Amino acid sequence: MTANRKITIRDVAERVGVSASTVSRALNVHTRDLIMPETVERVLQVARDLGYQPNRFAYALKKRKSFAVGVLIPNLQDPLFPPIIRGIEHVFNRSGYTAVVANTDDDAAQEAVALERLRRLAVDGFIVATALRRDVVVEECLRQGAPLVLVNRTVDSLDVDEVVTDDGAGVRAAIEHLISLGHRRIAHVAGPQDLSTGYSRCRAFMSCVRDLGLEHDDGLIEVAASFRLLEGQVACARLLARRNDFTAIVAGNDLLALGCIDVLRERSLDCPRDVSVVGHNDMPMVDRMPPPLTTLAIPHYEMGAEAARSVIERIDNPAGARRAVLLRPKLIVRKSTAPAKPAGGETQKATA
Amino acid sequence: MTANRKITIRDVAERVGVSASTVSRALNVHTRDLIMPETVERVLQVARDLGYQPNRFAYALKKRKSFAVGVLIPNLQDPLFPPIIRGIEHVFNRSGYTAVVANTDDDAAQEAVALERLRRLAVDGFIVATALRRDVVVEECLRQGAPLVLVNRTVDSLDVDEVVTDDGAGVRAAIEHLISLGHRRIAHVAGPQDLSTGYSRCRAFMSCVRDLGLEHDDGLIEVAASFRLLEGQVACARLLARRNDFTAIVAGNDLLALGCIDVLRERSLDCPRDVSVVGHNDMPMVDRMPPPLTTLAIPHYEMGAEAARSVIERIDNPAGARRAVLLRPKLIVRKSTAPAKPAGGETQKATA
Repeated sequence: MTANRKITIRDVAERVGVSASTVSRALNVHTRDLIMPETVERVLQVARDLGYQPNRFAYALKKRKSFAVGVLIPNLQDPLFPPIIRGIEHVFNRSGYTAVVANTDDDAAQEAVALERLRRLAVDGFIVATALRRDVVVEECLRQGAPLVLVNRTVDSLDVDEVVTDDGAGVRAAIEHLISLGHRRIAHVAGPQDLSTGYSRCRAFMSCVRDLGLEHDDGLIEVAASFRLLEGQVACARLLARRNDFTAIVAGNDLLALGCIDVLRERSLDCPRDVSVVGHNDMPMVDRMPPPLTTLAIPHYEMGAEAARSVIERIDNPAGARRAVLLRPKLIVRKSTAPAKPAGGETQKATA
Repeated sequence: MTANRKITIRDVAERVGVSASTVSRALNVHTRDLIMPETVERVLQVARDLGYQPNRFAYALKKRKSFAVGVLIPNLQDPLFPPIIRGIEHVFNRSGYTAVVANTDDDAAQEAVALERLRRLAVDGFIVATALRRDVVVEECLRQGAPLVLVNRTVDSLDVDEVVTDDGAGVRAAIEHLISLGHRRIAHVAGPQDLSTGYSRCRAFMSCVRDLGLEHDDGLIEVAASFRLLEGQVACARLLARRNDFTAIVAGNDLLALGCIDVLRERSLDCPRDVSVVGHNDMPMVDRMPPPLTTLAIPHYEMGAEAARSVIERIDNPAGARRAVLLRPKLIVRKSTAPAKPAGGETQKATA
């Protein structure tokens, strides 16, 4: 699309047989609805045939708006994020916005580089999936008045738009499921406590255990250094070095759950016969693992779509009321949870 | 970063105590090397502190260059693509380019929408992972002189830059591995033949079978309608309805391989004891499946990085020589392949 630099809106208008302003409206997704669909189609076809290139930069210069939004994520290769980004794209495609995605690997230096790059693109706003509970980058963006929406992870005590899941409801569903299977001593392998996801699931675990009448026992909680599989193994090994009286584990996410199952297997403890394990996220392929993982499905696509709607609203109305969207996870029962072994008793065949 | 619209390069220069042209060079990744690193850092810090927003649109208008490249992929949720995109990002970050990713779901209408969106962004070029063997979109882009690089999939008989894998070498390694385990009657569940990946792996299968002295037998080849798991199940069921004399399957990709294993299991055929299965791609988590999948690992990250280098070269030098990069896959032997059952004989315990 670099050829034919000189084709103008007037050339397109002449070929189609309409006015230049009709062509202009037809080419603009924000005004397209004013024009007859057949005319829009004809204009687009002729613009393509002639190799017309809209002078977007002149438009952006006039409007001081790029219709681009920066999306900061930790790592696209974590299967959490592709569906979030597709949800964002779905809403943006209908609104003329474009997402520019940057990976930070949860590293401050990379995040600084990514932010500078997005700043140079003059993005109209940010969707941030990388937030720490106390996040200087988010604070700086808000101080400078940048439209910003947090997705998946949130921050402590800031008045900022967010789209997150209802961790309290999710963890409660997991614990109620385990209690219904006869489990009473339930351990928690938690995610990092500087991330809202790790922290809020751990807080939810503690308050549910209390609310549902189980004995509160700090020794049954182990915090992993990250949400990765290897750290799940390390945390589960630490837990097992200290305790052997639990019959179930609620893990902070699916990768931690898989790490737990690995370590249990190493110690000749079968999941679910000896220990039941519940994950969080329902990432792809966990339904095909041995054993297929019981977990909490999160509507990632919808999270992305909601975040996109929020950031567009914030761009259009910087002083509008805060929009916080809380989406409910859904417990998916598979084969990694089974009735608890009788207390102090011998092994029992899993019925699940 | 929408606040403080009026901050200019001169404000930053005054605060740092250097000339405006030094600030301009320090802020531009393409000229930054001319300035002392400490000065660059100081300029970036002050620009951030003051909330300076570079007037990128004016710059782009002058240069007629956006430093954005459109990346067309089928679906970000296919685990093939996130590492390709991270490889692209890695190279682009160092060159001041930005990737704008669009999903097409291999649907012509969605692809048209995506292309129009990228055209309106005035991207400098395209990286295309969605090509059919005969692809009108690719043809149109090339006719209009747009810098364009194909990645993963290529087209028939066009003189275009590409980064693909050496399917011949990959399939040959898979077949040699199976022959070394005593397999003689090997089936192929191929990917769609309108995609270069499906087609070239199938061609490679046929020529390797001949070259390696196995009997050529068209009845042992079954083509799946897409590269999805469900279509792997359908194709394997068709194959089994016709033939039961093969001891191994080479699948066009990992999802087809998993579909085959599902159908074998339904028919009480054990993988690998009764039938060995080899995948292609080494997608995440196939090492944890029952059985862990023997497959061909493809350097996806490196593919993305090479495609990014190619498109930058093509943008800088539209008339330069064609650049075709061929990357070699690597056979990863796991537990889905085992010695062949003796011909006509009884089942044999897998030794793998």
